[in-house]
Amino acid sequence: MSDALRPGPAMSPGAGEIFQILRDGRARTKAELAAHTGLARSTVALRVDALLAADLLHAAGDAVSTGGRPPARVAFNARAGVVLAVDLGATHATVAVADLGGVIMDARTRPVDIGDGPESLLDEILSDGAALLNADPVHGIPLLGIGIGVPGPVEHSTGRPTNPPIMPGWDRFDVPGYVQRTFDVPVLVDNDVNILALGEHATTWPDVDDLIFVKVSTGIGAGIIAGGSLQRGAQGSAGDMGHVQVPRAAASTRDPEDERDLEALASGSALARSLRARGVDARDPGDVIDLVRAGDPLAVEATRQAGRDVGEVLATVVNLLNPSIIVLGGSIARAGEHLLAGVREVVYRRSIPLATQHLSIVQSQAGDRAAVLGAAIMVAHEVLSPASVDRLLAARPR
Amino acid sequence: MSDALRPGPAMSPGAGEIFQILRDGRARTKAELAAHTGLARSTVALRVDALLAADLLHAAGDAVSTGGRPPARVAFNARAGVVLAVDLGATHATVAVADLGGVIMDARTRPVDIGDGPESLLDEILSDGAALLNADPVHGIPLLGIGIGVPGPVEHSTGRPTNPPIMPGWDRFDVPGYVQRTFDVPVLVDNDVNILALGEHATTWPDVDDLIFVKVSTGIGAGIIAGGSLQRGAQGSAGDMGHVQVPRAAASTRDPEDERDLEALASGSALARSLRARGVDARDPGDVIDLVRAGDPLAVEATRQAGRDVGEVLATVVNLLNPSIIVLGGSIARAGEHLLAGVREVVYRRSIPLATQHLSIVQSQAGDRAAVLGAAIMVAHEVLSPASVDRLLAARPR
Repeated sequence: MSDALRPGPAMSPGAGEIFQILRDGRARTKAELAAHTGLARSTVALRVDALLAADLLHAAGDAVSTGGRPPARVAFNARAGVVLAVDLGATHATVAVADLGGVIMDARTRPVDIGDGPESLLDEILSDGAALLNADPVHGIPLLGIGIGVPGPVEHSTGRPTNPPIMPGWDRFDVPGYVQRTFDVPVLVDNDVNILALGEHATTWPDVDDLIFVKVSTGIGAGIIAGGSLQRGAQGSAGDMGHVQVPRAAASTRDPEDERDLEALASGSALARSLRARGVDARDPGDVIDLVRAGDPLAVEATRQAGRDVGEVLATVVNLLNPSIIVLGGSIARAGEHLLAGVREVVYRRSIPLATQHLSIVQSQAGDRAAVLGAAIMVAHEVLSPASVDRLLAARPR
Repeated sequence: MSDALRPGPAMSPGAGEIFQILRDGRARTKAELAAHTGLARSTVALRVDALLAADLLHAAGDAVSTGGRPPARVAFNARAGVVLAVDLGATHATVAVADLGGVIMDARTRPVDIGDGPESLLDEILSDGAALLNADPVHGIPLLGIGIGVPGPVEHSTGRPTNPPIMPGWDRFDVPGYVQRTFDVPVLVDNDVNILALGEHATTWPDVDDLIFVKVSTGIGAGIIAGGSLQRGAQGSAGDMGHVQVPRAAASTRDPEDERDLEALASGSALARSLRARGVDARDPGDVIDLVRAGDPLAVEATRQAGRDVGEVLATVVNLLNPSIIVLGGSIARAGEHLLAGVREVVYRRSIPLATQHLSIVQSQAGDRAAVLGAAIMVAHEVLSPASVDRLLAARPR
């Protein structure tokens, strides 16, 4: 690279910014980029050359000439790098490799036991990740970052799980530090519900600014997108719906004083427990789902009541945050329309009219891949930020 | 203005952006602005000249020379224009005139009855506003916008109150349209609690990204700042805490089935009603405040219980949004520490540890001026946005 291309103090702001414009995938000429940014043509040319040299842009054919040599167009090269996206659940781990545009190129899922603790589990995940990176079609493309979703609260700024109830041995474990011993790239960790909210938002509701994603499976949690951004709160614990107390009207239909948290009333585990108490053979949430799918009347009614309980809390969320979409996901939501029906019944009756008149409550559309998609989007967003791109250019050998 | 300064398509993006850098009040040279933005020196010079001609910047003395003529510095001219900021309550209206930096230059308060309806009330407000604009020190400075806080829900995008319970005659009234018949400038309307949240945030907690402001007076409402931005939700009704149902544990200490909304349990009106039911002469929230200040034990205990009820709902808010600061404002909060004590008692016991370990719950600091400050900040932010500044420059006579 010539001295003229060397990123210096006067040049460093800007290459990352120009790059953002091109992340929509549309090809543009340098003249179009200059007009769009107000930057001098010569400045745009220097920065585009640096981005081309770093492979983040590629030549994308010529524009139509207005006389003379037709101007060259450049476009975002989504295959300049890949990210690893990990969806770690209580009993499974999916590792996917995605390009920088969030397209999944390859993936592996294996059964795991989250109780095995972080080191052996992360070793398995990293081994799957290495296998994916070394195989076609990924082999040779540089790894730029890793995004990991885990089934518990995470301090997002440090990537450490914090008192995760179903993750023994993970409390305060330095997940990024451990992963970076194998892959020295940025590692972002978040709880699985935030990751699902990002995936659902990107794939199905990209133009919605205010969306609540609720996962009802073994436990219950929410991912909150408000004002167009995922809200993690001050310590990263935002969206903890499972420990919200259910208002009296609903909770009074059941008795024990200690069963007041939403998760203790309406999660898959709670459903299995309450069905067992009524003599139904339901050992776990999986059995509940099977019973619901088979049309068992007790299981169906219990699921609908769980929807009403979730709805009691969502009525509060609707008054507080006035979302336009509530998405229900997780295994219990996917077992049929019963949970959704219960949620709708309560939310539309209970929330203030201004907040519900344009509110849609829907099932998750993004399916099984939402988690790895969300993890890929989270980490791609980080490694392609203006500051990250500028750092990446500055670090290149010259 | 010479042709060279005329804002054209190639120039229009950027003047507004450059201006944002200077809104912190620090003076800078054109060279510093060029380095900061990566724009060409010549581009910066054109835009700074346009902003100087529009009076939005002023010359701010010379920088230290590094040889030759010392470079001139420019700075934000907060007195290039003023805004009117209106705090409309049930029984008072304050009209203030503020400069573009949010400094209150003059203000008037008058008693009103919100039940008189929008036209006569807005006429009074506009007449006060005109008097302020025509008097020193404001006379001659152009009015750039008007911000209005009202005691009820507002569709922020249109400025129309929506089913406001204590504002008869205001439902769907086109407040901006009516005001613009007198002052043809941008008019933003929001509910008073959002305005208070903006004022409190700007004056006392500018570096906090996640703050909940709760107003407890005649009614109860919240203003939510999450991820650094005021969250209004899809229809502008976010923050409606008053209609949130109180969880069973607290509500069960009182009886009537219809008293489940927080506002029906813990507002100033509810406190007066419950004290009357116990034989205390409390006609309205003002009487409750007097009794609390005089140390009446029933009034003090009722206020503390109201704090516990507010705390039950805030425990949910804390789990959902993980704020770092909760600010309690409004007349009942200001009557002493009793409401605050009740809120703290419940929130710290009830919310998840990760969300409370760094949580502060405090009294409002910004005082009586918070509302007009918030209204001024809201409208200044709008009229000084990059797009607004670019429009303003484009509309100037040349």
